[in-house]
Amino acid sequence: MNTDMMDKPYVAGIDIGGQTTKLGIVDTRGQVLAQTVIRTDTHTDVVPYIDELADALEKIIRESGSEDKIRGIGIGAPNANYYTGTIENAVNITWGGPSTIPFAELLSNRTGGMKVALTNDANAAAVGEMTYGAARGMKNFIMITLGTGVGSGIVVNGEVVYGHDGFAGELGHTCAVRSNGRLCNCGKTGCLETYCSATGVARTAREWLTLSDEPSVLRSLDTISSKDVYEAAKEGDKFALKIFEFTGKILGQSFADFVAFSAPEAIVLFGGLARAKEYLYQPILDSMNANLLPLWRGKIKIVFSQLKESDAAILGASALAWEL
Amino acid sequence: MNTDMMDKPYVAGIDIGGQTTKLGIVDTRGQVLAQTVIRTDTHTDVVPYIDELADALEKIIRESGSEDKIRGIGIGAPNANYYTGTIENAVNITWGGPSTIPFAELLSNRTGGMKVALTNDANAAAVGEMTYGAARGMKNFIMITLGTGVGSGIVVNGEVVYGHDGFAGELGHTCAVRSNGRLCNCGKTGCLETYCSATGVARTAREWLTLSDEPSVLRSLDTISSKDVYEAAKEGDKFALKIFEFTGKILGQSFADFVAFSAPEAIVLFGGLARAKEYLYQPILDSMNANLLPLWRGKIKIVFSQLKESDAAILGASALAWEL
Repeated sequence: MNTDMMDKPYVAGIDIGGQTTKLGIVDTRGQVLAQTVIRTDTHTDVVPYIDELADALEKIIRESGSEDKIRGIGIGAPNANYYTGTIENAVNITWGGPSTIPFAELLSNRTGGMKVALTNDANAAAVGEMTYGAARGMKNFIMITLGTGVGSGIVVNGEVVYGHDGFAGELGHTCAVRSNGRLCNCGKTGCLETYCSATGVARTAREWLTLSDEPSVLRSLDTISSKDVYEAAKEGDKFALKIFEFTGKILGQSFADFVAFSAPEAIVLFGGLARAKEYLYQPILDSMNANLLPLWRGKIKIVFSQLKESDAAILGASALAWEL
Repeated sequence: MNTDMMDKPYVAGIDIGGQTTKLGIVDTRGQVLAQTVIRTDTHTDVVPYIDELADALEKIIRESGSEDKIRGIGIGAPNANYYTGTIENAVNITWGGPSTIPFAELLSNRTGGMKVALTNDANAAAVGEMTYGAARGMKNFIMITLGTGVGSGIVVNGEVVYGHDGFAGELGHTCAVRSNGRLCNCGKTGCLETYCSATGVARTAREWLTLSDEPSVLRSLDTISSKDVYEAAKEGDKFALKIFEFTGKILGQSFADFVAFSAPEAIVLFGGLARAKEYLYQPILDSMNANLLPLWRGKIKIVFSQLKESDAAILGASALAWEL
């Protein structure tokens, strides 16, 4: 641990979602000392949002007794650019709009010059996993977040890959199904996230129910979420189990291509859908190995996040600040 | 330029192919001062091969007057591992066999302790392009070599990506065609190199000739190489032109996925097939842009190597040695 870490042994982590913003104070061992939540979506302008955020931050700094001991602030946010500290074209955030917001600068100014680092949520999760979680000690791994969408954070040689423009790691929008692929929110077809996100799994369920007569407890539901499919699988519903097999198979095929790119030690899975690990693990592993070059077969680990889910978003974001 | 570069302003580059080995002495500006060629395939054991190689190297060092001024030796070779300096399981080399050869160590011992760095040919090409060629000044780009196979070298933040085991960057074996894809030498199906290498282009020609009655000058040939398809395209043969359109379309689709991974500034193309740039450039660009997320559309450059082809292999390998 360097001098700076002893002088300023705490970091702040902020996870900005479309609806809520979670923030917390974290120590070097990854303990969340204080945390709180504010609404993201009650503001249409960023300035009053930053005011409320800075006030909430001040409150938890006081609560945790970490005044003057904060090394910096790490933020995970949609469409965040690590290089420029801006949030660009974040259409899912009420104050995001089509503009480029100098978020790091605004928050730094509002907090008396604290250092601020910003990246997208999947990159933050990768740094969190490397600092506190399943990827400790790993220099080369790929983080895949299986949530509403599929996000990714790629670590090469111990560093997150940001690319030329700061937006590297959009593996949810690589092509999983080339012909007649599903239409994605991004406008393309066949994107990995149209099959393997929580919404993708629900979509598979709805699609398959209309295409077959196979009995399933899912038939009795008005709307189907990935959680319903998971619950059905736990009850032994064969139809639901097949959905997870299919999802794992597609993930594994894509993972094999990701391995050919950066030869990671492991692929780390995180997010709501990753909770279904007992149904996803083996199909992913089998399908990945079947699609890998012989030199990698049987050698790439599939691991699931070890971070406590309620803390993970804050931890991931906070970990960024250690690098400031 | 640092002191070391002034003391030792030359590097040696060695490009090991299945049939021949090219070697040369290179200065800081990328001028090849002396070069020669030896056979790779006249030896079944590595030791006499290394003897012959070291003798040839000594000769061109004398010729170029660079005795005691060689900073190190860079080698591009199939199945070369940068981390360990070994050549592993190189079945296409007569002295390669199934074993792991400590090549860097053997050559260093035989040359009085010269420093030796080893990587695969596509990675060497990437370093060469970054040091002397089309990628000068770029920190993030992907090198794609379109030769007998499809090789790749990925540069992130100014560094070649070697991955956990030293074998990263096998983009020729990512899946380009998921269903009913062509069988690859690696044992998988649908690999990019079964469509977009020189042999892939010839394969497309042969396949399409049996599937259609379309007239083409290629029908009169007994065997078809990618060079034949290129010559036919130059004569305006529509069938041949369509083959390049198809090849470019598949490359562009795959490139879009590569961009989603590392957000490069450019993709740099090199190798025999890249000579057909007038027929490949536009189809690649159109297809890549059609498959990119909106944020990258129109922003990623497709560039062709600027290195003189006869020097390129030596330059690429030699560039590795500057990093020693």
